[in-house]
Amino acid sequence: MARIRNPERHSHTASSPKGRDLQSMNEPLTVALPSPFTLYRNGVLHHARIAYETWGQLNEARDNAILLFTGLSPSQHAASSELDPSPGWWERIVGPGLALDTTRHFIVCVNSLGSCFGSTGAASIDPATGERYRLNFPEIAVEDIARAGYETVQALGIDTLECVVGASLGGMSVLAFATLFPQAARGLISISGSAAPSAFAIALRSVQREAILRDPDWQGGNYQPEHPPRSGMRIARKLGTITYRSAAELRQRFGREPLAGNARSVSPFAPHFAVEGYLEAQAERFLRVFDANCYLYLSNAMDRFDLSEHGGSIATALKNVSAERVLVIGVESDMLYAIHEQAAIAEAFQHNGVPTRFTRMPSLEGHDAFLVDIPRFDAALRDFLCP
Amino acid sequence: MARIRNPERHSHTASSPKGRDLQSMNEPLTVALPSPFTLYRNGVLHHARIAYETWGQLNEARDNAILLFTGLSPSQHAASSELDPSPGWWERIVGPGLALDTTRHFIVCVNSLGSCFGSTGAASIDPATGERYRLNFPEIAVEDIARAGYETVQALGIDTLECVVGASLGGMSVLAFATLFPQAARGLISISGSAAPSAFAIALRSVQREAILRDPDWQGGNYQPEHPPRSGMRIARKLGTITYRSAAELRQRFGREPLAGNARSVSPFAPHFAVEGYLEAQAERFLRVFDANCYLYLSNAMDRFDLSEHGGSIATALKNVSAERVLVIGVESDMLYAIHEQAAIAEAFQHNGVPTRFTRMPSLEGHDAFLVDIPRFDAALRDFLCP
Repeated sequence: MARIRNPERHSHTASSPKGRDLQSMNEPLTVALPSPFTLYRNGVLHHARIAYETWGQLNEARDNAILLFTGLSPSQHAASSELDPSPGWWERIVGPGLALDTTRHFIVCVNSLGSCFGSTGAASIDPATGERYRLNFPEIAVEDIARAGYETVQALGIDTLECVVGASLGGMSVLAFATLFPQAARGLISISGSAAPSAFAIALRSVQREAILRDPDWQGGNYQPEHPPRSGMRIARKLGTITYRSAAELRQRFGREPLAGNARSVSPFAPHFAVEGYLEAQAERFLRVFDANCYLYLSNAMDRFDLSEHGGSIATALKNVSAERVLVIGVESDMLYAIHEQAAIAEAFQHNGVPTRFTRMPSLEGHDAFLVDIPRFDAALRDFLCP
Repeated sequence: MARIRNPERHSHTASSPKGRDLQSMNEPLTVALPSPFTLYRNGVLHHARIAYETWGQLNEARDNAILLFTGLSPSQHAASSELDPSPGWWERIVGPGLALDTTRHFIVCVNSLGSCFGSTGAASIDPATGERYRLNFPEIAVEDIARAGYETVQALGIDTLECVVGASLGGMSVLAFATLFPQAARGLISISGSAAPSAFAIALRSVQREAILRDPDWQGGNYQPEHPPRSGMRIARKLGTITYRSAAELRQRFGREPLAGNARSVSPFAPHFAVEGYLEAQAERFLRVFDANCYLYLSNAMDRFDLSEHGGSIATALKNVSAERVLVIGVESDMLYAIHEQAAIAEAFQHNGVPTRFTRMPSLEGHDAFLVDIPRFDAALRDFLCP
């Protein structure tokens, strides 16, 4: 395995005498970003770090690395590993012999800048004050997430990537990466991304953010970590969950089935249908792991992303891309980032003469299909990466 | 004009000495429902009233009446009248020479039972206690709304209706009316209704209700009218507004236009896009007129509605319908009550041998198209009512 320049274990819990061995198992690997790290819109970060996880081995030529960007909510834990044997969010895609084959590729998944799984975000301690950033955190753009991913692989000794992959916010990050570092990857895979989210997507995310902003427990962003704006986060995540799937899938999975064990409640408005139980479970899971301010910053970054800021159009933004091949995957039932947006992304690459494959997935699972419709995504990714 | 049995002005403000003449202009006409009024699911109402408004003249044969049910939020004020010259919610459909032609028809629009524009609902005073019902109000079903509409026209001296018309919740009320009173109307028009809302529609409304239920100002339903759960109502209405339209319409109207006059705000999460301003305006308007508990009751009624409870299927529920003609209108871009649901409703009537026309509207405006795409709806209604 090739030498890695400066990764280190993030040590914020190292001073804890209790359960240190156990904790160190779960401490994220991090790299330092260049400091100061000047942000795309405004402001700088000092001593920022990016958490990441890797699978497989970087070969001696250092040319088998795949950089994986995530959606808004997942962590860098895409798959189980020795460091963390719990299943990851793309467990059936990343692994030995899988589509992102860890026996062939060195896979690096980064926690987005601004998120809360070890990368610097609004929930992190501001080294200038010793307090959490909270709303003093500067505005994060998708371009910053992309550049932080680039700096992470640079720090791992990788100059040129075999491929950069991402879905949802990850797909947007791939597009920003391609725009900012057009020579840095031989392959690109954008899944259910967006080059500039639609009014519909903006409207939905605006309501999600407002649910948090109006929760009194948000306290202008100054909530204590143990007392977050739970109500707002629940509403935001439930609404997100609905828009990540499709009406057809919800009909098939839940129909009008009543909630199991639903006794006549004292409240006339208690959940009554199985689909409400599903939303509840999704919200509960999210509440346990995600920071509200980080959510707000990343949600905002998604709305504000507009690739055409880089020269006037998507094609102009991507005009210097030297990738040998690009795969754009869209899902026909995706209500958030519609299939015509995916087609427009593919066309922009094609317009620039980049060999580009556009795959329309007929999956029922909407925006989240990449997490659920594994057979189709496995086949499409495998076919592209290991033809 | 034919004699009307027992309508009277609702007199809850008559004891106010100030501005009495002005107020009486806006006092709704009401009729008393039979007392007790036994509800479809459970419970009874005593001395309940239904607010209504009429246009045109009931003829001597009493056979030119059209009963109009409303969506969740509109009042009985479908069009301007001498009583209330302000524009109504279907101003370009109901009037002299319009599709619902007030020179030919006697049109009665009812405020749904459970709503808050003069009909008895959770915000009304419970005669048994002298206090507002609030959560002591019994569960309202769409069947109750339908029967309250039937009782209203009965009270106005009408036994058989020329037509029963409604859109959204109004369309559901039309289906319930046809099931409960299969001989009472010669024509039926169901627009963007549902015979049993989908998991997707239920999920969205569940989140809307939860936004209100979790607003501390809701106070378990015991808020004072001057201090309603504004945050929850705003979130609920904004989400509703998004689902009442379509992604295509929002793209066409707003795209990624910035909010007019949007200066760099002190808050990093202040509204930034024009579509957010639109949602804001819709929410503000709704907050001024609608009661939160009434909203919860009606939203719940929509989710729980399942026409197949009446015999096992939609067709069985409608098997005794003797209407001479039925018009079912669906909108292809309706994400809430999808076009295939409309087709299924039309097929159920056709299965029973009822002459039924099914009109698929290609309107961009989604569920709300009946309020917006007036040329198409005018043509379809006119063609059916005045061929």
